Amino acid sequence: MVDNLDAIFSPQSLAVVGASKTPGKVGHDIFVNILKGGYRGTLYPVNPKARSVSSVTAYPTISDISGSVDLAMVILPPRPALTAVKEAIDKGIKGVVIVSAGFREVGGEGLEIENTIVGLCREAGVRVVGPNCLGVINPLANVRLNASFSARMPKPGNISFISQSGALCTAVLDFAADRDFGFSKFISIGNKADIDEPDLLRYFHQDEDTEVIMLYLEELRRGPEFIEAVKEITSGDIRPTPVLVIKSGRTAAGAQAAASHTGALAGTEGVYDAIFQQSGIIRVDSIDELFDFATAFAYKNESALGKFRCKVPAGNRVAIVTNAGGPGIVATDMTVTSGLQLAKLQEETIEVLASHLPETANLQNPVDVIGDAPMDRYENALAAVIRDEGVDGALVILTPQSMTDVLGTAEAIVRIARRSPKPILCCFMGIIDVSSGVRYLQEHGVPVFKFPENAAKTFGTLYQYSRWLNRQRMAQFDLHHNSSRACRIVQDWLDAGKTHIGELEGIEHGHQSS
Amino acid sequence: MVDNLDAIFSPQSLAVVGASKTPGKVGHDIFVNILKGGYRGTLYPVNPKARSVSSVTAYPTISDISGSVDLAMVILPPRPALTAVKEAIDKGIKGVVIVSAGFREVGGEGLEIENTIVGLCREAGVRVVGPNCLGVINPLANVRLNASFSARMPKPGNISFISQSGALCTAVLDFAADRDFGFSKFISIGNKADIDEPDLLRYFHQDEDTEVIMLYLEELRRGPEFIEAVKEITSGDIRPTPVLVIKSGRTAAGAQAAASHTGALAGTEGVYDAIFQQSGIIRVDSIDELFDFATAFAYKNESALGKFRCKVPAGNRVAIVTNAGGPGIVATDMTVTSGLQLAKLQEETIEVLASHLPETANLQNPVDVIGDAPMDRYENALAAVIRDEGVDGALVILTPQSMTDVLGTAEAIVRIARRSPKPILCCFMGIIDVSSGVRYLQEHGVPVFKFPENAAKTFGTLYQYSRWLNRQRMAQFDLHHNSSRACRIVQDWLDAGKTHIGELEGIEHGHQSS
Repeated sequence: MVDNLDAIFSPQSLAVVGASKTPGKVGHDIFVNILKGGYRGTLYPVNPKARSVSSVTAYPTISDISGSVDLAMVILPPRPALTAVKEAIDKGIKGVVIVSAGFREVGGEGLEIENTIVGLCREAGVRVVGPNCLGVINPLANVRLNASFSARMPKPGNISFISQSGALCTAVLDFAADRDFGFSKFISIGNKADIDEPDLLRYFHQDEDTEVIMLYLEELRRGPEFIEAVKEITSGDIRPTPVLVIKSGRTAAGAQAAASHTGALAGTEGVYDAIFQQSGIIRVDSIDELFDFATAFAYKNESALGKFRCKVPAGNRVAIVTNAGGPGIVATDMTVTSGLQLAKLQEETIEVLASHLPETANLQNPVDVIGDAPMDRYENALAAVIRDEGVDGALVILTPQSMTDVLGTAEAIVRIARRSPKPILCCFMGIIDVSSGVRYLQEHGVPVFKFPENAAKTFGTLYQYSRWLNRQRMAQFDLHHNSSRACRIVQDWLDAGKTHIGELEGIEHGHQSS
Repeated sequence: MVDNLDAIFSPQSLAVVGASKTPGKVGHDIFVNILKGGYRGTLYPVNPKARSVSSVTAYPTISDISGSVDLAMVILPPRPALTAVKEAIDKGIKGVVIVSAGFREVGGEGLEIENTIVGLCREAGVRVVGPNCLGVINPLANVRLNASFSARMPKPGNISFISQSGALCTAVLDFAADRDFGFSKFISIGNKADIDEPDLLRYFHQDEDTEVIMLYLEELRRGPEFIEAVKEITSGDIRPTPVLVIKSGRTAAGAQAAASHTGALAGTEGVYDAIFQQSGIIRVDSIDELFDFATAFAYKNESALGKFRCKVPAGNRVAIVTNAGGPGIVATDMTVTSGLQLAKLQEETIEVLASHLPETANLQNPVDVIGDAPMDRYENALAAVIRDEGVDGALVILTPQSMTDVLGTAEAIVRIARRSPKPILCCFMGIIDVSSGVRYLQEHGVPVFKFPENAAKTFGTLYQYSRWLNRQRMAQFDLHHNSSRACRIVQDWLDAGKTHIGELEGIEHGHQSS
């Protein structure tokens, strides 16, 4: 079943059923986004009333297209959508993306038509994305498919993003452009009438171009399959892949809002937390944090540590190098709060630091190289602490003072990061004054943050993931023999025959959050 | 005592003792920053070895200057600094800013010289900033003083910022430039040998150009005076001014780092929390949050509510208007988590919404105007909810979809915000695609955020401040009769004769955090 998702993400040919000549209409904008995005396959507009759309010859129906069609994008209200899907099945397509709304989420006939469409497609072996979704994006050079509402095609990269909210996708693409993120696949799953999280997680795990999976979740319908899929991905012997999840509808009011948005009942938070915890999912608290963590997880490791592709710390002992005392203290607070500890530097390290730093510098961790630090002072200090056997990784903080060599310091950090298997995370505080250094670090695979708190918290998450990976090596994950509270909650829930984590009576040992 | 801070922030004439011809040296860069900043007064470089500095005639000593001098910036090591201060006192200056380090924070002779300087200055009625600080900035048009390490002069505005960390100042200035913040006064207090938080809080409270005070604090030396000063400011009958405080050194490790940074012992967190809580200080958790909250507090209210200058909600009932379900749920979660509630819309409001919104829209709060919403759909929906008597304020969320009129929607929001006394906070999700709207909102005094969580949390803080102001009106703040736990902690601490919240044996009812 997973294999025919290729037709969704890498179709050779694509028909847009409901393509429109009128700018501002969804059927127009999506067609133009595909066309302008430089899609490598063959694109067919389907519109019975137009001779051409954006100067491309249009076809009255999908049956009128002479060549084969892999994927149909359907931008039509429910009844005509059903007719179009029937025709598309007859045409021999392998996948359908239904963008339009008005199906399950409005109930009644919409729900009925959605069920009919899924039934017909399942029978024919055709996979369905949506309805009520933003579409699908694959920016990789051999596909270049931007079949979405968003005029913005992201740059190619190693993150695959699954979103239950279409609108969130457009904002995420905009933030990603600003923070230099690249994507492998990008999908808005909408009502997830057919293709849902377990399908996509498995597909992305097998996808060689995906190294980090990000998921925005409102509710989960196939709980046990989700658990199985995540187990394979995060604890697999082959290519464990970090999965970052932002789950909204945490509060009762939020769950209520989710219900009216997708027509799905949102679930019991305790069950979600338990599932995430025991399956090694990295739960993210805010959209901002999703980007912070992805900054660290998505970067390629230039001196790979085993099978995992971003650098994770072997332990929790962090060294901080800063040209500013205040931000060093702020970072120290968050380091400790995030389950890490300040490394105690060895005597030899302190001697090396003393030989390179001025008298007023602080040689203890957090190492303060003082506000007037030139590039080489940073380089010597960072090289010394990262060599220290009592240090598992470093945070480098730079504030742009008038004597600061922002770019030179970034170059020095990259030189050291290349030689060391220990993670080095940076905080270059500011926007404009530090931009040259930030760009250089981003281009050379060193995670960089705006605020010391964010860098320290992200380091804490890398450490937690490292512990998860080690735990996997020591004791193979087993749902049925693990006695943790998290496992009990999930086991009880499975025993009760639940599948959809959205039943408000969800089990949570005596209390429920909804 | 407060009055002669005018010589610090608005000197008519200024001597830079230790001005240097060598680019990259502090004495050069600060001099050039003042010169290029367009200082409105008269500037004198003092350097016995140079005929001129940056083409301005130099004087061998401050005594050689023929005109009067209000302020001396001293950029010299401790011993020559002491000599320079003596000469400056003889010259009749009113204030000294000592930028250089090597004083109290290194102990020994440095500490002795610092004490001697302060003794001499107190005797002569001269106020001292520093040592070991970044300097002083006043961007207002009639002063334009950038006597600091930072090459960046902020734009004029209504925020005054006090920082115990000099380096943090440069980063804050950079972030401020990006987020369109203006400042009234900006000061790095360093070792605060003389001028400290209570002095500055009182001065800024009297300052007509200051409407919000931001404070970065590592430790507090004059506890009771600080409490008294904050009492006056936040509970005063005249011009209550919001005070946002970020206090680092929360954890034991952070406190340790603070101790080695400023030579001061960091304090017991319980005492800080109690002081902040009972004095109406808004404690901020991160540097990022400081900017978020300032975004709301610093904006001018175009239809002023009483004495307070930014719009605060009368209650905690929030209406959300969004073109995207997912972000609406995220905002709902954070709204509830921040002590607010989702407003229940009245029947008439829902009828009005129904007449303007498409069938698929959600008419309940959070109101979903749907992804293809044009500007007028937002305008009608926001106007309807903000008129509702059961609504105390609104969050407007916009995600940039291909049909979204970003600027037009911003204009519509501003039209409504101008007519309503209720606060309207916006979240325009994204960076590049939403930039036209973000700029328009910023220019027209509507707080705007990147993420729904931040907007909702900030709304929660505005509501807490509103409650604080109301509490003040109902029962005048009284330290000695308030029976809350916070007051007891502080009272015990005062009774024990403490002043410096930095004594590690600090009282916290049986346990201490350091």
